[in-house]
Amino acid sequence: MSTIDATPLSPTPRTTLGRSRERGLTDRAALHAILREALVAHLGVDVGDHPVVLPVAIAVDLDGPDADGTLYVHGSVAARWLTRSERRTVCVTATLLDGLVVARSGFHHSMNYRSAVVVGEARIVEDPQEKAHALDLTVDHVVPGRSATLRPPTRKEVAATAVLAIPLREASVKVRAGDPVDDDTDVEAGAWAGVVPLSTVASSPVSAADSHDEVPADVVSRAAQLGA
Amino acid sequence: MSTIDATPLSPTPRTTLGRSRERGLTDRAALHAILREALVAHLGVDVGDHPVVLPVAIAVDLDGPDADGTLYVHGSVAARWLTRSERRTVCVTATLLDGLVVARSGFHHSMNYRSAVVVGEARIVEDPQEKAHALDLTVDHVVPGRSATLRPPTRKEVAATAVLAIPLREASVKVRAGDPVDDDTDVEAGAWAGVVPLSTVASSPVSAADSHDEVPADVVSRAAQLGA
Repeated sequence: MSTIDATPLSPTPRTTLGRSRERGLTDRAALHAILREALVAHLGVDVGDHPVVLPVAIAVDLDGPDADGTLYVHGSVAARWLTRSERRTVCVTATLLDGLVVARSGFHHSMNYRSAVVVGEARIVEDPQEKAHALDLTVDHVVPGRSATLRPPTRKEVAATAVLAIPLREASVKVRAGDPVDDDTDVEAGAWAGVVPLSTVASSPVSAADSHDEVPADVVSRAAQLGA
Repeated sequence: MSTIDATPLSPTPRTTLGRSRERGLTDRAALHAILREALVAHLGVDVGDHPVVLPVAIAVDLDGPDADGTLYVHGSVAARWLTRSERRTVCVTATLLDGLVVARSGFHHSMNYRSAVVVGEARIVEDPQEKAHALDLTVDHVVPGRSATLRPPTRKEVAATAVLAIPLREASVKVRAGDPVDDDTDVEAGAWAGVVPLSTVASSPVSAADSHDEVPADVVSRAAQLGA
């Protein structure tokens, strides 16, 4: 299920179409949809003699400073991966797993998924307004509308957090969907093949031990949207 | 939720403990459990001037050629990311998302998750027996026991597939679980906080359009194990 592929999304050859061209999508809307749905992405940064890949929360701002949109990732100012990313070309990949593709041969086993690969130079956000907005978007990415219900971050909290901005300029999208593709001879042999659908599903919100209030509407609806 | 951290798992400083030491686990069993449960991992490889991060299926062999176990990743022999990985230090990260941590401030919003980061030099598997075994393990990782029910791969299929082996020597595990950790003043203010539990859930297997046989027991039990 791994491939470097790209689409007209990318103006440079850095994400040029690799394997399985037919799985490359040409639609920026598909890129945005995957990034909006992904609760976690994986950021790769060169830390010297090798890349390190770490899970990150993300936020997308299509009205941000970059013409094609901006991807935001944040972390502690003390996190080495983050300071290492400054002014470097990083790769942020979001993958949504949709199913196990169970074929009639090992070779044709696969996964149904939607993945977005973004490659770009990471900028540490210095502008206080952009930084505050990026942090709000990050909270709202997890629970839409939530940032407006919270107290504003303290100066200390903002100072302890670093935000990376990656332009949504160079990107690729890959989607695998549908039945396994088996060899005719295996199909004729009559064995079963199919897909085990998968999704990320929420269950009912669990109040913290020190929480005595009712679950707020934004959390209830987010959990419901995720299947709770 | 991002961090470079490591544990006594790692004999070198390349994955030395970074942020949130308390979230580092010292237990190899935890590493193996995360890798066993993960249906997808993300491999990072330097492709020249930047890393590329791609979703990969994985398999683990604790009785493999490497003392601490071997992580296998496979792909097409024509996949650039894979040929680029040969004899390079790559990073393979598996992340299991367990919940949205909804705090009383944006700053303390987080995710509950279990992640494993493996850093090691990738070796292209040449030995036919090891390669065949790695491919069986990869199928069985998706549906336990399935490889034994399939026809053996053809010589052409094996030749078209490249398998990377990464030693499970340098690794780190990070786990975040439980309630949000809010500031006392925010707790006293009385707003709600809690967790929205998340899991990857299967639904009933869907037979392929060209499949007329019954869903086999291994697929039924795998789907059931994943909540179908």
